[in-house]
Amino acid sequence: MTQFTYDGLPGRVVFGAGAARTQLLTELDLLGARRVLLIATDAENGTATQLCAPFADRVVATFSEVRPHVPAEVAELARKIALDADADVVLSVGGGSTTGTAKIVALTTGLPVLAVPTTYAGSEVTPVWGLTERGRKTTGTDRRVLPKTVVYDPELTLTLPVELSVASGLNAVAHCVEAFWAPRRSPVSSAVAEDGIRHLVNGLTTIASTPTGLASRGELLLGAYLAGSAFAVAGSGLHHKICHVLGGAFDLPHAHTHAIVLPYVLAYNAPNAGEAVGRISRALGRVDIVDGLRELGGAVGVPAGLRELGMDESGVDDVIDDILAIAPADNPTRVTAEGLRAILHGAWAGSHPVGPTA
Amino acid sequence: MTQFTYDGLPGRVVFGAGAARTQLLTELDLLGARRVLLIATDAENGTATQLCAPFADRVVATFSEVRPHVPAEVAELARKIALDADADVVLSVGGGSTTGTAKIVALTTGLPVLAVPTTYAGSEVTPVWGLTERGRKTTGTDRRVLPKTVVYDPELTLTLPVELSVASGLNAVAHCVEAFWAPRRSPVSSAVAEDGIRHLVNGLTTIASTPTGLASRGELLLGAYLAGSAFAVAGSGLHHKICHVLGGAFDLPHAHTHAIVLPYVLAYNAPNAGEAVGRISRALGRVDIVDGLRELGGAVGVPAGLRELGMDESGVDDVIDDILAIAPADNPTRVTAEGLRAILHGAWAGSHPVGPTA
Repeated sequence: MTQFTYDGLPGRVVFGAGAARTQLLTELDLLGARRVLLIATDAENGTATQLCAPFADRVVATFSEVRPHVPAEVAELARKIALDADADVVLSVGGGSTTGTAKIVALTTGLPVLAVPTTYAGSEVTPVWGLTERGRKTTGTDRRVLPKTVVYDPELTLTLPVELSVASGLNAVAHCVEAFWAPRRSPVSSAVAEDGIRHLVNGLTTIASTPTGLASRGELLLGAYLAGSAFAVAGSGLHHKICHVLGGAFDLPHAHTHAIVLPYVLAYNAPNAGEAVGRISRALGRVDIVDGLRELGGAVGVPAGLRELGMDESGVDDVIDDILAIAPADNPTRVTAEGLRAILHGAWAGSHPVGPTA
Repeated sequence: MTQFTYDGLPGRVVFGAGAARTQLLTELDLLGARRVLLIATDAENGTATQLCAPFADRVVATFSEVRPHVPAEVAELARKIALDADADVVLSVGGGSTTGTAKIVALTTGLPVLAVPTTYAGSEVTPVWGLTERGRKTTGTDRRVLPKTVVYDPELTLTLPVELSVASGLNAVAHCVEAFWAPRRSPVSSAVAEDGIRHLVNGLTTIASTPTGLASRGELLLGAYLAGSAFAVAGSGLHHKICHVLGGAFDLPHAHTHAIVLPYVLAYNAPNAGEAVGRISRALGRVDIVDGLRELGGAVGVPAGLRELGMDESGVDDVIDDILAIAPADNPTRVTAEGLRAILHGAWAGSHPVGPTA
């Protein structure tokens, strides 16, 4: 019997090729914003300046000292600049770290954020913030950090390197798949995640041959938005817990780890996750979804196993307890040490993923 | 190239068999509500009293004078009772008219609404309100009327007559289909509408054989929720304009009119609405979607043509101009007098729907 709780998130999304060039002033006006704090890295400064040309007189301050994982001193400096300039909106133009900095300013000042993503991060539609103090990252969830408006423009992502685009796309696929069994899953987040997979696969399978093609870029950006939206309400599950622990323990590359591990978690959960199987199968257009995910990764250069990323097989035993400690209680298939060992040995070797033993 | 604007609506949904019996107090607490104005008709009073038993001390007033289309004097009386009782929440238990009354109280007082639907109306997730003054109905859109929380409990709908359930279900299907080409369509509303069709079809094709089955009721209620959500953001299109004019001109039964006309509008739009065709086809699990919709209606007792509802064929010419005047400019197939005539003559006769002539 269907049972769920769904907390719908507000937020306006404007999506289209050229939207950032043509819609930003309109969207600022809709927010009633007259005094803009622009957050953009030096690398994005050229783009941001062009986008702001129609309302250059409203840009009362610019902040470019963006750093990954939003160090506390960066956050404090950005907050101070926002207050000193008497800004009434934060306009972020950039990737996940830039959006993340704008979110922290929103958290500490209450200012609305208008986000213009230039990558396929998806974080611009989530209420999740992160802050790093003395090397330790804290994350939290607060609706104040959710951008009021997001303007998605595939043109801004045309120059994002293919490798980075593929990495973001694979992470987004993992978010979509996990949305089907994540703790706050709902019919809405699942419907959105299913379509997210469709668009991401379209983008991932075409971007290498048409790296500057608007169609591929548009599919990846749309897929990233849908993946972010699904994650924002549903949360994540076992797969992300495993990758989080692996990443921390062995310093493995984020996206490749995700792409390698996901088929093994899917194979483990599939016998007890009928809806997920049906949706992924529909989205991929094939029945053998575990093979489908592996082929998707293989086609974009993901190695078959974690050993090819430099991980030692003995590492598997080191992380079982850490993963067990944070494994979701309502994972479709009960998480056991034995089950995790099978997942991780398989993912390490790159052998064919198998289901849970009975 | 994908292009859209999406205004996400906030709102919390709790869905499950028994949810109204077990979750209302928790949800009132989450809203910080201590003084409840209960709106429920006399017919629903028994149910409502039972549901309120766990917090009977918080019910400071009850309003039962609900009337269809929310007459202004009813709205004014409800508002006055809310203010006199110093209510801090409006709890509606009932169908569309009851929810509609609660929405008007929200509009005039700013009070939050907790809606507990007992039918498959779907209006509880839309920001649309309606009010009738001196026989003239005004409608509007305002986020203040959107219920903060909706508790969906299929158990409350077990006794809704099959005929009424089917009528609501067919209306909901029409909302889902129109969501694919409605003016504010977006990837999110389309994904939700596609799944809405799936659940509505599940419910519609099983309710006659299991009228008190929770599974059928749950599917209809979930489908109605998804249809309402899609309509809430996407709006409606040509089909609803046609039915609105037909209903007003010839006093035809609402649901049957919708079910009869929809396949003809779909056939007219299909050649220029590839995404709609793909989604409906996926949801129905068949390629011949026009036939699929007709068979769905036929299986639940909808006559083939409007003439069986008592409409005169000469009426077709009388309404063409009225429909043309309000036809959506961006309908997938351009709306012409000739096109409308073909749709309406076909729908009148119940002949096989055909596409637009070139």
